[in-house]
Amino acid sequence: MIIIMKPGAARENIDTVVKAISSKGLQAHLSQGDQVTIVGVVGDKTRLMHDNLELIPGVDKILSVTETYKLANKKFHPQDSTILVGDTPIGPGRLTMMAGPCAIENEDMMMKSAAAVKAAGASFLRGGAYKPRTSPYAFQGLEEEGLRYIRRAADAAGLKVICEITSQRALDTAVHYVDMMQIGARNMQNFELLKEAGRSRIPVLLKRGLNATIDEWLNAAEYIISEGNPNVVLCERGIRTYEKATRNTLDLSAVPVIRQKSHLPVIVDPSHATGVREYVAPLARAAVAAGADGLMIEVHPCPSCALSDGPQSLTFEQFEALCRELKPYAALAGRTF
Amino acid sequence: MIIIMKPGAARENIDTVVKAISSKGLQAHLSQGDQVTIVGVVGDKTRLMHDNLELIPGVDKILSVTETYKLANKKFHPQDSTILVGDTPIGPGRLTMMAGPCAIENEDMMMKSAAAVKAAGASFLRGGAYKPRTSPYAFQGLEEEGLRYIRRAADAAGLKVICEITSQRALDTAVHYVDMMQIGARNMQNFELLKEAGRSRIPVLLKRGLNATIDEWLNAAEYIISEGNPNVVLCERGIRTYEKATRNTLDLSAVPVIRQKSHLPVIVDPSHATGVREYVAPLARAAVAAGADGLMIEVHPCPSCALSDGPQSLTFEQFEALCRELKPYAALAGRTF
Amino acid sequence: MIIIMKPGAARENIDTVVKAISSKGLQAHLSQGDQVTIVGVVGDKTRLMHDNLELIPGVDKILSVTETYKLANKKFHPQDSTILVGDTPIGPGRLTMMAGPCAIENEDMMMKSAAAVKAAGASFLRGGAYKPRTSPYAFQGLEEEGLRYIRRAADAAGLKVICEITSQRALDTAVHYVDMMQIGARNMQNFELLKEAGRSRIPVLLKRGLNATIDEWLNAAEYIISEGNPNVVLCERGIRTYEKATRNTLDLSAVPVIRQKSHLPVIVDPSHATGVREYVAPLARAAVAAGADGLMIEVHPCPSCALSDGPQSLTFEQFEALCRELKPYAALAGRTF
Amino acid sequence: MIIIMKPGAARENIDTVVKAISSKGLQAHLSQGDQVTIVGVVGDKTRLMHDNLELIPGVDKILSVTETYKLANKKFHPQDSTILVGDTPIGPGRLTMMAGPCAIENEDMMMKSAAAVKAAGASFLRGGAYKPRTSPYAFQGLEEEGLRYIRRAADAAGLKVICEITSQRALDTAVHYVDMMQIGARNMQNFELLKEAGRSRIPVLLKRGLNATIDEWLNAAEYIISEGNPNVVLCERGIRTYEKATRNTLDLSAVPVIRQKSHLPVIVDPSHATGVREYVAPLARAAVAAGADGLMIEVHPCPSCALSDGPQSLTFEQFEALCRELKPYAALAGRTF
Repeated sequence: MIIIMKPGAARENIDTVVKAISSKGLQAHLSQGDQVTIVGVVGDKTRLMHDNLELIPGVDKILSVTETYKLANKKFHPQDSTILVGDTPIGPGRLTMMAGPCAIENEDMMMKSAAAVKAAGASFLRGGAYKPRTSPYAFQGLEEEGLRYIRRAADAAGLKVICEITSQRALDTAVHYVDMMQIGARNMQNFELLKEAGRSRIPVLLKRGLNATIDEWLNAAEYIISEGNPNVVLCERGIRTYEKATRNTLDLSAVPVIRQKSHLPVIVDPSHATGVREYVAPLARAAVAAGADGLMIEVHPCPSCALSDGPQSLTFEQFEALCRELKPYAALAGRTF
Repeated sequence: MIIIMKPGAARENIDTVVKAISSKGLQAHLSQGDQVTIVGVVGDKTRLMHDNLELIPGVDKILSVTETYKLANKKFHPQDSTILVGDTPIGPGRLTMMAGPCAIENEDMMMKSAAAVKAAGASFLRGGAYKPRTSPYAFQGLEEEGLRYIRRAADAAGLKVICEITSQRALDTAVHYVDMMQIGARNMQNFELLKEAGRSRIPVLLKRGLNATIDEWLNAAEYIISEGNPNVVLCERGIRTYEKATRNTLDLSAVPVIRQKSHLPVIVDPSHATGVREYVAPLARAAVAAGADGLMIEVHPCPSCALSDGPQSLTFEQFEALCRELKPYAALAGRTF
Repeated sequence: MIIIMKPGAARENIDTVVKAISSKGLQAHLSQGDQVTIVGVVGDKTRLMHDNLELIPGVDKILSVTETYKLANKKFHPQDSTILVGDTPIGPGRLTMMAGPCAIENEDMMMKSAAAVKAAGASFLRGGAYKPRTSPYAFQGLEEEGLRYIRRAADAAGLKVICEITSQRALDTAVHYVDMMQIGARNMQNFELLKEAGRSRIPVLLKRGLNATIDEWLNAAEYIISEGNPNVVLCERGIRTYEKATRNTLDLSAVPVIRQKSHLPVIVDPSHATGVREYVAPLARAAVAAGADGLMIEVHPCPSCALSDGPQSLTFEQFEALCRELKPYAALAGRTF
Repeated sequence: MIIIMKPGAARENIDTVVKAISSKGLQAHLSQGDQVTIVGVVGDKTRLMHDNLELIPGVDKILSVTETYKLANKKFHPQDSTILVGDTPIGPGRLTMMAGPCAIENEDMMMKSAAAVKAAGASFLRGGAYKPRTSPYAFQGLEEEGLRYIRRAADAAGLKVICEITSQRALDTAVHYVDMMQIGARNMQNFELLKEAGRSRIPVLLKRGLNATIDEWLNAAEYIISEGNPNVVLCERGIRTYEKATRNTLDLSAVPVIRQKSHLPVIVDPSHATGVREYVAPLARAAVAAGADGLMIEVHPCPSCALSDGPQSLTFEQFEALCRELKPYAALAGRTF
């Protein structure tokens, strides 16, 4: 932590800062410049968390030097992690494909979807049973009935199940059906839910919030891990910007940034990021080339009949073609799927 | 709803669209232009919600004409609402002051804060018992113990209590202590929590999400109202932009926009929006001048000792001075407090 | 300037940094922490501008402590400036009203506009002769012909003229007609134009770029002042965010932030910021309450006939009513107009 | 164009709208809904540009159906264009590599850079002679002297020259030295400069503005083409968002979006987008996989000695390695370089 004093801060103000630091058993190092004095803090900074040094007269600003997340931080865990979902690994050397419809609509469409995405190369079946929707009048999901459908469909095809959970109540039910739970963009800072997910021990796919910085995202992962669940995979799915040609702006830079800052695997969802079917394939290829550990793709037996997000869903044929197209890109990136 | 066809869309594609519309008992009106055909839909559009007309070949885009929120919509409720919290009204003609510390730290500071903010003119005591914090290692709040402190302090001073709730569990406890519950920015699209708040019947202060459009914010209010709780007050508290001179960017335009689109009262929180004590007073005055129904201000007996958000808190003296300064602005705006 | 080393940076890397600093005749102060070493630089940092310390192995990041703008900086010019445009002052104690149509369309509408805005209380007549337009097919302005119209109209009414200039060529012509030149949002970082404006000595109204930070905005002012023209007034006119209910998001926090960081006057343009006539009056009041030194308002004799930006223009009657409404707000803010 | 009336708009208001439309020789088509009446306009809408229908009482909003750019629009030019810079084509089937230092510092470094980037596979040498810099005190470029260096270096190595021009004056000089001129992000809406570039007939690389929508970017290209210069190549270089882990947010979705909306080639600049050397290679690969027609990469003989943007520059060795790594990705994308 560094405290920057205002130009011409009085000697007594600097002393007050130094005293506040040393009163916590920490050391203060002074750097006296021409215009500005800087105070560096040495020691366990968490002891200072409750002090508002910024309000001491003469203090200009306070800069944090180290990240607040530790368990998700590559600095303290330099080797990239592989997360096991049952016997299916996510991480280095593999390209994990998660595919399926946005919402679970009935058993039949899940059975068909499972068979189709498995044949194309996916290892996870996705499908929403609890749907966070902007309007209370939009379709909200089949809940437990939906979970039963996706479980049966995945078992029949030999796939793992991933479902979004949106509340403690949904989590309590979902644990009986899913292999991996997804925490969606809108709940990325629903800290109560993160803690519950941390206590549950089921692997978690943590989507980035629409307005979350990468730093906040890794802190959200820290919530889960610090409750005892180290099995976290991150998912970039677009952030909100002024540009409206796509639903959100896919931030592919997040892939190399996460690779540098964290040991956790990171996958990419180009379907939700763009909201446009034609853009899914080029951005899926780009994600693989950027180093993503996997992809989440929306696939629907009949996109024009879908209960939600049809315009961005691929048909079975399109998904099969995409997987074929992705294989050589995955190979170049040193990944198999 | 309007469907815009691509230039040169085939006759049969247009027919498919028209058939899809009429199959739901709705009427389609065609507007054949030089380059583009437009199809207007007449009737109850919710019947079309499950159709993905956008995927019919030849369709370029679909435009929504009417808002999805109804109960929060001024079009269907032209008179501005007054929300009663007990016997304290929020709405036209009044400037409601909510003030207090960011976090409840102990009983003593709540007693002092209550007395001070009451004396200055506030009618609500605020204070966080459940704190949503970016890092799991930051102070998370005193929970029920904190609720007891704020209740006692408010009762002693003759104030109403407003507290943020962050989960179903917190809500179940809080109903026994608070007069109004706050749903914070990070939970604005925690739809499960919105529904619970809707079923609880306690008045709700709904803060705008950091990345929420005004339309999404009003849809969030619709979640609460449509569950049976019409007592919703909105609170603008800054949105996330690229600018970093303030913690967030206070969007004061939201006040006249909400006034035009909704009948619900709207208040402003300049403390969280800016994160800087010096900017609170000018923006508080601006909010009143823009037409806000109230203000939420952070006040702390000793900002430099605060457990959270000290740098943006006013001292008792500063709050008292602010209230004095605001009175003539409130009078100009036709409001008393 | 502060150099933060990576955790566990090698002793030799730290030495390299220290040598790079001392080789420029500057002093390096070391702060050795548990995990991290910090190097403070003391002396004239501009000597280091050409060194890329960041690339020395072991360096994590470099933080700037002082602003790069000096002449626009309140730290070195603590008293708020009053800018004289002829004999008309802009600054403390006054609320300067600039009003008129978006584009100059003909002489008659300028004469009428001048008379009306003068009567209501404006001291500047605005009107665009060179219009920056998104599409090359939109109306681009009357150029010199327009400048003649606005000059005559302003002279007849006893007003100062302010016009946007968009190029060196426009500037060369405009100097013969205008009292103050405006550099628009899209040209805020057209550095060649800023330098020309700096050499011209005519007072400059510098609008904030749509995506400019306040720091970049003050650096743009520094370009003008450092070329010899200290007569710069800033104008907040909305920034681009994800929100689409208003054309841009008016960042009123910029008013107190500029007040704190700079001695230059700052005015507000609620017309361009919102793009909606109904929102102009509430935000004009808010700007005055926030401490703005003036307002720029679009007024048109017949908004529904305007060649550009009609929807946000006030009629003469609306402008007159707005000025009447603003007077007591100005009085509260200690300003006359 | 579609005019949407407010719910319950009076019959006479609708009539006024219809009359305004037919008075211009256009046709109005009415769609009378339950709540809302919609008026479609058929015919050449540019005749309506000067009317502000929005201000007619009862009008809610006006929606544009067709893009304002025509010459840059794929709808009217369905085949992807190849732009010739001398005898060097940019477009389908090729991956054009542009590389070199951010700023031209001296002749020697340009000669070395030219030889190195040519050997690695680049066909263009880049280097800034006119540098747009946030602070007036930062290095501003060698101007004509720099142009001489880059021309000689490129000729010696057999490369084309691309340089940013920032003013009419710079353009007048640069035409004698460069093969392609770059209009930078900060000048994307410097419309006077766009028109000059359009009259010059030298191929133009048009970078996307930091806050420009794709629609605005294509309108900027339209300015150049409509002045007679069809040789425009677009360059995505990151947009400004709230995220600060990278300097800007590279919007790779822009590649497929441009591919769909325009026939112009589009290249990607991952160096300026990220500002971090380690992220350049993964995003360069991603750009190729997304379908980009080329890349612009910063390369410097000694990044730690660079006068500007050193931290994002690759060394010659790193650039050579990147080109080698990119070849199989280019091959997969059907491109040679």
